[in-house]
Amino acid sequence: MTIAPAASAGAAVRRGPGRPRDTDMDPQIVAAVLELIDAEEEVTVSRVVERSGVSRAALYRRWPSLTTLIAAALDVGRTVPPELPVGGDLRETLFTSLIGSPTSISPSGYSEARFRQRIRLVMADRALQRAYWESHVSRRRGPVERALRSGIERGILREDLDVEAAFDAIAGAAYYQSIVRGEPLESADTRRRLAAAFDITWRGMAA
Amino acid sequence: MTIAPAASAGAAVRRGPGRPRDTDMDPQIVAAVLELIDAEEEVTVSRVVERSGVSRAALYRRWPSLTTLIAAALDVGRTVPPELPVGGDLRETLFTSLIGSPTSISPSGYSEARFRQRIRLVMADRALQRAYWESHVSRRRGPVERALRSGIERGILREDLDVEAAFDAIAGAAYYQSIVRGEPLESADTRRRLAAAFDITWRGMAA
Repeated sequence: MTIAPAASAGAAVRRGPGRPRDTDMDPQIVAAVLELIDAEEEVTVSRVVERSGVSRAALYRRWPSLTTLIAAALDVGRTVPPELPVGGDLRETLFTSLIGSPTSISPSGYSEARFRQRIRLVMADRALQRAYWESHVSRRRGPVERALRSGIERGILREDLDVEAAFDAIAGAAYYQSIVRGEPLESADTRRRLAAAFDITWRGMAA
Repeated sequence: MTIAPAASAGAAVRRGPGRPRDTDMDPQIVAAVLELIDAEEEVTVSRVVERSGVSRAALYRRWPSLTTLIAAALDVGRTVPPELPVGGDLRETLFTSLIGSPTSISPSGYSEARFRQRIRLVMADRALQRAYWESHVSRRRGPVERALRSGIERGILREDLDVEAAFDAIAGAAYYQSIVRGEPLESADTRRRLAAAFDITWRGMAA
């Protein structure tokens, strides 16, 4: 039996579950998607094919869903932040972690273009939104939520504090700036408002 | 000079600034857009033409930008809420106004499909986002912001309260549920979290 030429080999791959997948092409595919997103161009299969140099057939084989590909690309380089120090000034620790830098909360590690693309994507696809929440966003909340719980144990925060709701209020104020007001997180007005919103929330959490 | 037949009349309209515009067709155009949004179908010119029965030429003449048309459709039926009563239980008044019903805050008057469409739209177009903020969202905040200011005057709320930041924290928590968690505002978990977030914010605002 001879080895089939490239085109038929492609067709064979789709049927053979044991065969290795085209994961080697992922870096160039994902890089092409991120270039398009950063250029604020719409991500289409044709454009990804053109930029990445990967064939349309190979792209479809590796990423049958464009949505999943974009989601994966958007998560490149984003990690769960490290645990926060316990025992210091909790207010200061939380402020630095959540509001300290213009990109600390919602768009952490993102360019604004990537953040906006992510929001459009999850608003268009409920299943993706829930999957994204479960596998990415909720995990990234972990260190702050654990710091809040340690604050309750140390008697700094109210015993009956709803830790999840507290996080939602602080992070929600930041999302509101980007999504509703449409103001960049690094503007002076936004920084001032976020600091004020954090102050309100902190007072409401304190024991 | 004879009156031109319908087709050439259309071409003439584009040039004649004094001629009345095709505003009579707006109700059927806007209704078609809302039907598409509610069916969670993408709004395209072809689909609007098909559903509304209005010709493509007339549609372009009246609405040269599809984005502006969608934005206008999304705002149908939304009004600035009435002023809040002053002098009563301010916490109760604010809670009822902001969290009281599942649709009080962000998606007020919206179906969830319309809310999601609005967010996608503003995330795709910064100019539209700012225009929408100035002409719609910021005006709808008025009654609550004025109630908060009256609370400061009455000595119920802290004298140095940042009213805008307080609103952002409460509303932001609601947006966070829909946009980041992807949970419907009417779910029991969401209602509980929003009530808890409101409680934290209220304590942080109180004098």
